[in-house]
Amino acid sequence: MQLGRLNHIGIATPSIEASVAFYRDVMGAQKVHTPFDLPAQGVKVCFVDTPNTQIELLEPLGEGSPIHGFLAKNPAGGQHHVCYEVPDIHEAKAWFEAKGAKVLGEPRIGAHGTLIFFLHPRDMGGVLTEIMETPRAEDGH
Amino acid sequence: MQLGRLNHIGIATPSIEASVAFYRDVMGAQKVHTPFDLPAQGVKVCFVDTPNTQIELLEPLGEGSPIHGFLAKNPAGGQHHVCYEVPDIHEAKAWFEAKGAKVLGEPRIGAHGTLIFFLHPRDMGGVLTEIMETPRAEDGH
Repeated sequence: MQLGRLNHIGIATPSIEASVAFYRDVMGAQKVHTPFDLPAQGVKVCFVDTPNTQIELLEPLGEGSPIHGFLAKNPAGGQHHVCYEVPDIHEAKAWFEAKGAKVLGEPRIGAHGTLIFFLHPRDMGGVLTEIMETPRAEDGH
Repeated sequence: MQLGRLNHIGIATPSIEASVAFYRDVMGAQKVHTPFDLPAQGVKVCFVDTPNTQIELLEPLGEGSPIHGFLAKNPAGGQHHVCYEVPDIHEAKAWFEAKGAKVLGEPRIGAHGTLIFFLHPRDMGGVLTEIMETPRAEDGH
């Protein structure tokens, strides 16, 4: 397997609205996408473009959101995960399992509409890592 | 100011040697640069290429390294900072100061040989943020 594009960095925030204002007014983001809910993962999501990758802002959605625990430790928000693209999600899952890395659950549809899974940070040098099948160009992502 | 390229994500590690083996053998990195010491910042540095950005591995160098505190909290390592490019470091410093963000020290030479500064995470949504003047093409970085 080859290390793929860094699709995005995931940034947790207590407020997407406040973070969008920050990225637009302080960081100078030129393109902020429309926020949307991803109930299956317990998050509200908003993508912000950089010239070569994206920032994925994550706000808790619902009581069981995995972001609550992160924000309890980091009330202002912070770096939550990184996401790399792969051409085939099932091949990638088999690859990481063969390397002894803990795959967290089965591949499921992620924020860009393609299959994703997460890898446990303990096997990833302390970095919560998302693996995502590369969106096809015709998907418009 | 416009949000620039994500030049790299900074990942702290207790061992660059072990992390290089991980990125090469597990993550499938195709290009790992030669590690080098950056004594002025108390770090040993190693860049790993992804197709669209870089990972900057950071190991403590010396007793006063700022990475020691991070590793005390995160012994396995983890996401340390993100770095965005700007065309002019002094304009960027004035911009962020005008926005009320805390610039940590004066611009200084960073790991890619151009001027950099860091911004306090409390003003950056919890994200330790490095701002870096874009390397010129002729620098070969």
